[in-house]
Amino acid sequence: MSEPATTPRPPYFAVIFTSTRTEVDEGYEATAARMAELGSRQPGFLGLESARDADGLGVTVSYWRTLEDVARWKAVAEHLAAQRLGREKWYRAYTLRVAKVEDDWSFSRP
Amino acid sequence: MSEPATTPRPPYFAVIFTSTRTEVDEGYEATAARMAELGSRQPGFLGLESARDADGLGVTVSYWRTLEDVARWKAVAEHLAAQRLGREKWYRAYTLRVAKVEDDWSFSRP
Repeated sequence: MSEPATTPRPPYFAVIFTSTRTEVDEGYEATAARMAELGSRQPGFLGLESARDADGLGVTVSYWRTLEDVARWKAVAEHLAAQRLGREKWYRAYTLRVAKVEDDWSFSRP
Repeated sequence: MSEPATTPRPPYFAVIFTSTRTEVDEGYEATAARMAELGSRQPGFLGLESARDADGLGVTVSYWRTLEDVARWKAVAEHLAAQRLGREKWYRAYTLRVAKVEDDWSFSRP
């Protein structure tokens, strides 16, 4: 089971990607997995949390050390190609938000 | 189908709640629905996005006008009781992050 990401003490940055999908599946899973793998190797990557609900809404949050790390990942050529395919084929709608994490806390069952 | 939340122009605040559940379901769905409804009537509430994956990870993001709105909602008595039940019964682990949204953009299929 995936877990909440383990991140350093704030401040750091969150990219919140919320989406609904089209009915086109062609290439989606492979590209999503590839982007998760490629993103996790970028400078400043801190963690990834992703869920898609049975009702179709997906919420994916990636964490980054700086805004420059966010901008650099956004501009990686293979990622740009995936973003274009997302708009052309896989996503009905999405919203992206870039946010500065100012505070966090965790609970874990003893 | 749930949609990405419609929020005003930044800045505003996001509370990112990532969790894994125990196997205890008693009261969970009703309380989650009640908190979504109660939260949406709080001052400064802007929107809610929530998904739980088939693998068990849940990612819920609520949006708020100010940090004071976030703090006020956290301290609502019925919400405090739900938080306590969450730690006692429903959640195996969770992380809460409070973040300031500095930029956002949306795509919607024509």
